[in-house]
Amino acid sequence: MSGSTEGDLTKTGMSLKHDREWDYELDRIVEAIEERNASKVGLQFPEGLKRRGPQVADDLREVAPDDVTFMLSGQPCYGACDLDTYLMRRTDVFVHFGHTPMKESDSIVYVPLFSNVDPFPIMEESLAELPDPEEDPDVGLVTTAQHMNRFEEMTDWLEARGYEVHTRRGDDRLTKEGQVLGCNYASADIPADRVLYVGGGKFHPVGLAMEHPEKTVVIADPVNNAVSIAEHDQFLKQRYASVHKAMDAEKWGVIFCTKIGQGRWETAQEIVENNENAYLITMDEVTPDRLRNFDMDAFVNTGCPRITTDDGPRFHKPMLTPGEYEAAIGERPLDQIEFDTFHDTW
Amino acid sequence: MSGSTEGDLTKTGMSLKHDREWDYELDRIVEAIEERNASKVGLQFPEGLKRRGPQVADDLREVAPDDVTFMLSGQPCYGACDLDTYLMRRTDVFVHFGHTPMKESDSIVYVPLFSNVDPFPIMEESLAELPDPEEDPDVGLVTTAQHMNRFEEMTDWLEARGYEVHTRRGDDRLTKEGQVLGCNYASADIPADRVLYVGGGKFHPVGLAMEHPEKTVVIADPVNNAVSIAEHDQFLKQRYASVHKAMDAEKWGVIFCTKIGQGRWETAQEIVENNENAYLITMDEVTPDRLRNFDMDAFVNTGCPRITTDDGPRFHKPMLTPGEYEAAIGERPLDQIEFDTFHDTW
Repeated sequence: MSGSTEGDLTKTGMSLKHDREWDYELDRIVEAIEERNASKVGLQFPEGLKRRGPQVADDLREVAPDDVTFMLSGQPCYGACDLDTYLMRRTDVFVHFGHTPMKESDSIVYVPLFSNVDPFPIMEESLAELPDPEEDPDVGLVTTAQHMNRFEEMTDWLEARGYEVHTRRGDDRLTKEGQVLGCNYASADIPADRVLYVGGGKFHPVGLAMEHPEKTVVIADPVNNAVSIAEHDQFLKQRYASVHKAMDAEKWGVIFCTKIGQGRWETAQEIVENNENAYLITMDEVTPDRLRNFDMDAFVNTGCPRITTDDGPRFHKPMLTPGEYEAAIGERPLDQIEFDTFHDTW
Repeated sequence: MSGSTEGDLTKTGMSLKHDREWDYELDRIVEAIEERNASKVGLQFPEGLKRRGPQVADDLREVAPDDVTFMLSGQPCYGACDLDTYLMRRTDVFVHFGHTPMKESDSIVYVPLFSNVDPFPIMEESLAELPDPEEDPDVGLVTTAQHMNRFEEMTDWLEARGYEVHTRRGDDRLTKEGQVLGCNYASADIPADRVLYVGGGKFHPVGLAMEHPEKTVVIADPVNNAVSIAEHDQFLKQRYASVHKAMDAEKWGVIFCTKIGQGRWETAQEIVENNENAYLITMDEVTPDRLRNFDMDAFVNTGCPRITTDDGPRFHKPMLTPGEYEAAIGERPLDQIEFDTFHDTW
């Protein structure tokens, strides 16, 4: 999501208060630099971690050959879908921090930044929100890139307490078993009414609750040391309100996002081909400022669904997901609106 | 310059009040579409004209073959230096409106948007600000892309009134005789103390006055129907203030702009190679939001100089041009600060 949406992301907990320790895997980066005899190295951090960039560059300078130039990406970054392709193409080694590969590539060193926070104390607390395993042993387990390194341990821990733990990898967009992304919760398509999310912030579990409104999503947040239940009502109400507002729209702006992992070309093209009052607009960052340049009645965002669901109210006109657009123009019953998920890679 | 700097550009008059008529040269665009049998056509407008995009797309749809998909660039655009290369590479015909070629290319149709405003009434008024030609006949003449189509007529008009009109093309970055860009005033390197700028807004003549503080720049603005003298004092004072503030800086962020015509790689690299407390940061839009992610004491912007001079105060830390940086670190006398100009293309 865009730089100017930081405020909202803060509310959903993506911006974390605690100063955690991360594993920057400097050895692995230096190894790649030496192997490729690199002279230019690009470093890309997601928004919440950009401040760490200069320090990481310093640490790398100390251990890397002298003639290496390190370049920090100043582009906004909100996921593994959001690679700085400019920097990637113009550096010998390109390191993407904070996410796991959406698609493996020799040109990219992914450093997921595993957290060293112990998840088990807060998991212990979260058991109060799960049913007694003797009555209902089924529970799903999901986490984010930062805690994936302990996923097996977490599974074992729950099993040792009598739960039947349901996990799956999801689809091609996800690297690992049990992993969730802001736009993809296929790993929670499991036969359990409760899903335990172990990880920092509310951004991911709220998305999960929107995608699976029939499930109870228990949040065990080892970073903020808090247990809670993911609420999605406010977001769903906003979605209906936006669709209603857009029903009168004549002129539609159809956004095609040019970020490497956020493009849905067929979806965008199909809309403009079937609506003579629709205009295709291409951009990387989808921000209120940029859309204000276009005198449309409503927008359909075929890019990141979380901009639509989380930041929609910040835009000057209603912004819908492709599915919501169908409802607004009467091609889909209003009660069949679903959370917009992203599959595939690029 | 960036989307969030719109406020300041408005002040320097780039955002024009009058609803002018432009020549969109639709015939030439349709010709290119037919010649190349194009199915995807990209349209890019600069910020002040983005609102016209959908209407131009409508007009083109009426005259172009049915199977053509038109795509509007939603990326910020502030000059011929600022092409939407994503759209350019992915469309069969890419039309860039509002600017003349910084570099000719078969892949780009440039439509400069010539204005149909008559420049002579306001030029008549501006004569009051020029010396009597019998005492001092020398005057320079410059204009922007929008009025270049009448540049010869303007020259003739002044000559008929007894002036010796000095014009030159400038350098490779400029397409035509007498043309100025926000970052390049080589066309005003002429032997005359007064330069007449005929064109809309103050953005260009203020830049000219900063680059040539020894000359008087008379503005004949046929769009806002106003004559004035370009003032640059306020900007120059701000520059000295920024340099002074940055003199104590330890950590420097060195911005390398990734826009096609705004990159000065050697300049950026030289700074980081010679200052161990300098960090190279790459980005396309240079905005206060993006730089706030970096905990630096000061920034050097090797990209668009007008972001530095016009929008500098909007950033959380002092931002300097490469020349000002030399003054701040003591490698150049403070009184030798010059307006930062851009040469070459890409």
